Amino acid sequence: MELWLYERPIFSEDQGWSYRIKIKKTLEDFKTPFQQLAVYESVEFGKVLTLDGVVQLTEHDEPHYHEMITHVPMMAHPNPEKILVIGGGDGGVIREVLKHPSVKEVHFAEIDEAVVTTCLKHFPNISCGLSDPRVIHRYTDGCAYTQQFENYFDVVIVDSTDPVGPAEVLFRESFFVDIKKAMKPEGIFVNQAENFAYKTHFETVKKLFEFLPNLFPNRGYYYTIVPTYPAGIIAFTFLSKGTDPYNFDIGNKSVPEGLRYYSPEMHKASFTLPRYAADAFATSNK
Amino acid sequence: MELWLYERPIFSEDQGWSYRIKIKKTLEDFKTPFQQLAVYESVEFGKVLTLDGVVQLTEHDEPHYHEMITHVPMMAHPNPEKILVIGGGDGGVIREVLKHPSVKEVHFAEIDEAVVTTCLKHFPNISCGLSDPRVIHRYTDGCAYTQQFENYFDVVIVDSTDPVGPAEVLFRESFFVDIKKAMKPEGIFVNQAENFAYKTHFETVKKLFEFLPNLFPNRGYYYTIVPTYPAGIIAFTFLSKGTDPYNFDIGNKSVPEGLRYYSPEMHKASFTLPRYAADAFATSNK
Repeated sequence: MELWLYERPIFSEDQGWSYRIKIKKTLEDFKTPFQQLAVYESVEFGKVLTLDGVVQLTEHDEPHYHEMITHVPMMAHPNPEKILVIGGGDGGVIREVLKHPSVKEVHFAEIDEAVVTTCLKHFPNISCGLSDPRVIHRYTDGCAYTQQFENYFDVVIVDSTDPVGPAEVLFRESFFVDIKKAMKPEGIFVNQAENFAYKTHFETVKKLFEFLPNLFPNRGYYYTIVPTYPAGIIAFTFLSKGTDPYNFDIGNKSVPEGLRYYSPEMHKASFTLPRYAADAFATSNK
Repeated sequence: MELWLYERPIFSEDQGWSYRIKIKKTLEDFKTPFQQLAVYESVEFGKVLTLDGVVQLTEHDEPHYHEMITHVPMMAHPNPEKILVIGGGDGGVIREVLKHPSVKEVHFAEIDEAVVTTCLKHFPNISCGLSDPRVIHRYTDGCAYTQQFENYFDVVIVDSTDPVGPAEVLFRESFFVDIKKAMKPEGIFVNQAENFAYKTHFETVKKLFEFLPNLFPNRGYYYTIVPTYPAGIIAFTFLSKGTDPYNFDIGNKSVPEGLRYYSPEMHKASFTLPRYAADAFATSNK
C-alpha cells in the first residue's frame, strides 16, 4: 500500500495545482477546538505537520522558513529586547528568536494549545525553546492579546496559517493597525504573507499592499524557498515605522551560529523580487 | 470528469514528492524518435509542454525560466555576437537571445525536430524567434555539433531536460570539456542544472561541482522561481574562463524592454544561495 498526502487547495477546489508527499506512517490525526491537526512520517522530508490538510512544516525544510521569518527582523533591529510571536505553535520562531542574546522577553500568543503540546511531543528539535524562562505563554487570540499593548515591542512576528479559517483575521487591516500601536517607534513587524509566484496567492498579497502604505512608511516584501509549500516559496511582509528594510546595515551584530539558510547576503537578496512582483506591490524602495 | 497531469518522478519511483496540474484538454500526445511529447491546456498555467511526462514549460511561468537562463549570460558578456543554444526546442531561449542587438549568429542545436514543429504550432509566442535569419538550425546531437568548434562562441546556453534519457550526456564532464574548447576566452557558458532545494536534485548538482573546478576558474550557480518545477525553483551553472559571475558590472548596456522577471538587481540576487548550498558547491566566490 502507498500513502500519499495531498495538499488541500487553500483558496478553492478549482485551483489548478496541487502536490503530494509520500508518507510512511500517520502519527497523529485529530480535531482540536480550532482545526484538524495531523503529523506524518514522510519518505523524504522527515516528519510533517499539517493543519486542516495544509502542510505547515517538514523537518527537512523548516529551517528555511524559521530562520528567514525570524533573523531578518532580528538582525535588522539594532537591539531587539521585547518580542511578540503570534501563531507558530510549533516553537520554531521562538527557537530562532532566543539565539539573539539581546532578547529579554518573548510573548507567545498561540490560539491552539493542541499544536504546542503535539509539537513538544513529535518535534523536540523545533519546540526546544518553549521552556525557556523568557517565554511568556498565552493560549489566546493574537489580535485581542496585541490590543493590550502600546509602544511596547521591538519585534513582532506573525507566523500564521493561510488567510482562511482561524488566521483570516490576521490579514485584516484592523489587525495591522493594532500591531502598529503595540510596536515601539523603531519596531519591526514581519508576517507570513503567502507568495507572488502562484497566481491565487499573488492576488491576496496585492490586496495587502493596497492598505499597507497608509500604515507603514517602510515596507518590504521578501521570500524564502520552501519546497513543500505551494509554488516552492513563501514570502513575508517587513513593516516598520523607523527601519528601512532596503538600507539594512548589520553593523557589529554577530549572526547566530549553525544556521542552514540565513546569511547577511541572503538577507539582502531575499528582498529582490521578480520585476512583475516588484511592480505590483508598493514596497518602499520604489 | 477531472483531468490532472501528474509529474513523473524524475530520478526514481521512490521519490517522496510530486505534483499535479489540473488540465482542461489534451492537445497533443505522441512519441517522437526521442521521447514522449504532450501539450495540454491547463486551468491555471495556460498551455503546458511535457517531455516523457515531465513539465518543460507552461505559458504562465516560462518567462521566469527563459529570461533568467538567457539574460544573465547575455548581460554579463560585454559584446555577445556568436551564440550557441543546445536544446530548448520550444524557442524561448532564442526569443530572448535575439533581444540583444549585438547578436550576429545563433547556432541552434536541438536533437528532436518534433519539439520544434509542435511548439511552432502551439506556442507561437515562445517560438517566434525561430524564423529570424540569424538563427542557424541544426537538428542534431548538441555534443557532436559542439565538437566542430574551437574558440568560437561568446555565449553558450544549454537548455536541456533533466539528466536522464536524451539529456544525460549533457551533464557529463566530457561535454563540459567540449564546450570549453568551443568558447572564446571571454565566453560564458550557462546550463540548466536542477536545483538545490530538493534533496534528489541536490546530489546531482554536488556531483557537477566536483569536476567543474578543474575546468573553469569562474563558477557561479544561480536560480529562478518556476512554480511548476519540482521544489518551485530551477538553477543554472554560470561557467567562464574570463568573466567573474560575482563581479558583474552592467556598464552602459541597456536591459531589453518588457521583461517580466529579469532585472539587474535580480541578476545579482539570484546568485545568493542558502548557506547550506553555498557551502556545498565550490562556486568561485568562496
